[in-house]
Amino acid sequence: MLQQALERARAGRKEAESDFFEFLAIPSVSSLRRHDDDTRRACGWVAERLTRMGMKVEVAEMPGGRHPVIAAEWLGQPGAPTVAIYGHYDVQPVDPVDEWVTPPFTPTVRDGRVFARGACDNKGQVLAGIKAAEHAFATGGPPVNLRFLIEGEEEISGDSLPRFVRENAARLKTDYLFLADGEFTAPGLPNLLTALRGLLYTEIHAVGSTADLHSGIFGGVAPNPLNTLAHVISALKGRDGRITIPGFYDPVVPPAPEEVEGWQRLPKDEATLKQLMGVTALEGEAEFSPVERTWARPTLDVHGVIGGFIEEGSKTVIPARATAKVSLRLVPDQDPEAVFRALEAYLPQLTTPGVRLTLEKLNSASPVVCGVEHPGIGAASRSFKQAFGAEPVLVREGGSVPVTIAFKEALNPNLLVTGFGLPDDALHSPNEKMDLEQYHRGTEMVLYLLDELVAAS
Amino acid sequence: MLQQALERARAGRKEAESDFFEFLAIPSVSSLRRHDDDTRRACGWVAERLTRMGMKVEVAEMPGGRHPVIAAEWLGQPGAPTVAIYGHYDVQPVDPVDEWVTPPFTPTVRDGRVFARGACDNKGQVLAGIKAAEHAFATGGPPVNLRFLIEGEEEISGDSLPRFVRENAARLKTDYLFLADGEFTAPGLPNLLTALRGLLYTEIHAVGSTADLHSGIFGGVAPNPLNTLAHVISALKGRDGRITIPGFYDPVVPPAPEEVEGWQRLPKDEATLKQLMGVTALEGEAEFSPVERTWARPTLDVHGVIGGFIEEGSKTVIPARATAKVSLRLVPDQDPEAVFRALEAYLPQLTTPGVRLTLEKLNSASPVVCGVEHPGIGAASRSFKQAFGAEPVLVREGGSVPVTIAFKEALNPNLLVTGFGLPDDALHSPNEKMDLEQYHRGTEMVLYLLDELVAAS
Repeated sequence: MLQQALERARAGRKEAESDFFEFLAIPSVSSLRRHDDDTRRACGWVAERLTRMGMKVEVAEMPGGRHPVIAAEWLGQPGAPTVAIYGHYDVQPVDPVDEWVTPPFTPTVRDGRVFARGACDNKGQVLAGIKAAEHAFATGGPPVNLRFLIEGEEEISGDSLPRFVRENAARLKTDYLFLADGEFTAPGLPNLLTALRGLLYTEIHAVGSTADLHSGIFGGVAPNPLNTLAHVISALKGRDGRITIPGFYDPVVPPAPEEVEGWQRLPKDEATLKQLMGVTALEGEAEFSPVERTWARPTLDVHGVIGGFIEEGSKTVIPARATAKVSLRLVPDQDPEAVFRALEAYLPQLTTPGVRLTLEKLNSASPVVCGVEHPGIGAASRSFKQAFGAEPVLVREGGSVPVTIAFKEALNPNLLVTGFGLPDDALHSPNEKMDLEQYHRGTEMVLYLLDELVAAS
Repeated sequence: MLQQALERARAGRKEAESDFFEFLAIPSVSSLRRHDDDTRRACGWVAERLTRMGMKVEVAEMPGGRHPVIAAEWLGQPGAPTVAIYGHYDVQPVDPVDEWVTPPFTPTVRDGRVFARGACDNKGQVLAGIKAAEHAFATGGPPVNLRFLIEGEEEISGDSLPRFVRENAARLKTDYLFLADGEFTAPGLPNLLTALRGLLYTEIHAVGSTADLHSGIFGGVAPNPLNTLAHVISALKGRDGRITIPGFYDPVVPPAPEEVEGWQRLPKDEATLKQLMGVTALEGEAEFSPVERTWARPTLDVHGVIGGFIEEGSKTVIPARATAKVSLRLVPDQDPEAVFRALEAYLPQLTTPGVRLTLEKLNSASPVVCGVEHPGIGAASRSFKQAFGAEPVLVREGGSVPVTIAFKEALNPNLLVTGFGLPDDALHSPNEKMDLEQYHRGTEMVLYLLDELVAAS
């Protein structure tokens, strides 16, 4: 049946492209109210396709949400694993629109690539999964139980899908979650994500005197919250990149040897990173490679310091209070809550006389382990090899993708986080595109994957 | 002749008060264009009085200046010292005007105090000197050669007087400069200023990458100029208040023993300062008293940090560049230029990998030593004792008074820096006042002083 489905996919490329362009022509910009009807139209377009192929489709409006969640289900393979495919039907705004060679919602093919907003992020990628399901249903049905969980609030960090997943966890049992919303590491080189860093974003508030003071009169005895914050920040992370919060590194799990080995072959050496950032030297822990530092090591950064005088010129004010925005990137198995409590307990040791420090949490996200040992990894690797002719490299992500945390916490599926885009796809930028070959092979990859997951389970 | 002058002063108190009120009624707010004519009228009023008593008066408009300088001269005592009296005829704005009990330019006496803008700062104090000269001229002439150097740009930090003094230094020879623009330490307790701290106000610019970076992607290898500035600021001044710039303390001259001894009797102990500032502890060098720390020790303060994200909420930006406004208060005999160069040479040691630091000077002022050993100090002490019944305490000033530096550098006179105001005179605030008794006794003090300076020289 896999062969039949693949043949159907190969024969139906023309139709798959016209489906793709139809989807791309809907300006589903989730952040803009004037596109609310369009965004809803995109939701309907997806729901209709899923219904047509025989899935049970639910379009769920969540309280306080902007755009509905699409949850499709087909449980026709008792005993086989259940695979959920994630995606989103909303897109980024198109500004600056003048920089588009062709209009963002008039999909235009040049050199085998379709240019349109959302081509790569995420319409082409989610549609590859939908088309794969279509072909499977048309040729005897998928070999696995299948779900789609598709949202319309990815670009606005909406809570509808995380909430839907949390509230319906009991009936959403899922063995594998497939999430394709990223890019190949290089042309011809797919990847699989094994972990994402978490985040703890805080404000450290420092309070000295009851009112601003003049440094001519009081300089030498007046506690200066800005000087204090400098001491605190300097003490929190040494010049060697090492964070000093007691117990901070205890839960850190080193990456698997096969991950680290693969990273050495990536085009992410020191020279490349220096050029990319435009810096003369990298900072951080010298005993770890640059890739390890951004993917597998926690770090701490200051994002802004509020307080005192920041206009042009000079004012000799000692501010009564000041605030530093400080965030920590966390890695498996660090817990944002535990780090917050450890930092809060540590701060009193770092202050200076007369300055009281308080810590406020603005937001946080747990690090996510996708794992390298569950059977889906091998299945996905073989599927990539078959569809694209290359095995994926195991990579990580330095930032967090909140939806993965929601899935992980509610459903705890084996995560397969990857992407069919290419590094030059211009996500979020003018002239976003997707190579049609990537789209078609992505469809085939999903077909292989459904088959491989049965074999692997 | 002193006795005659004193008797004339005592007999003429009524007239001295009507002169005072006439001067106060002129709204000479130097910062406001709509008061330019009034400010000029105050200048004319002073110049006319000085001319009338027989002095040679020059009203000098300086290029680029807002309000003219009054330079009056009488050199009728060859062989006697030359004494210059400083003052200013301009006043602060009156906002918030609603908080005045009586209108700011309608001088009103309540309980022996005259309420009006400029009563203490500086009209009452400069007029005390002018009235003393009037009485001296009316009773045989002053015992010294006399100058007045009176400006109209004190409240706007104008350069007219400093420039006039620099450009005419050769013909302005002066042995003593008397500057009364301050307040008693407490009622009944006059003071003499022995030194003022200087200032070096800088911006430390830190540059990392060529563009802002995302901490999810680059956190761990990206140089963060805000973290670097924290390291720099933390390293520049320890938690013990000690500044680490090499050689920084070498030129520091400790205060004279008689100064330190006097300071112990001042109401400036730790508890008082804590209450005044509203802090739980004082910062700074524990081995020095709070008074020494603010008057006789250099210090370093951060006034603001520019860069990154300071709006509400969280943004995980690693800024490409950041700037800290950092000033140093300096004491005799530290040289702002030398400190600037030492700091500039020191910064490369304090940076972190990938961040380039540059130092910019925004402004500077040399510390000023008024001295405790020149004969004017004893003369002024005896004059205070005779006029007010109390000897002055030797104090310092933590901030700088730029005009003292101009005089010092151009004319190098023995400085007598003091004041006839009281701590509750509300300078720069609503309901500014001056006690009429302070004004009259101030006049007598100047008469005693001119006499004592002859005896001392």
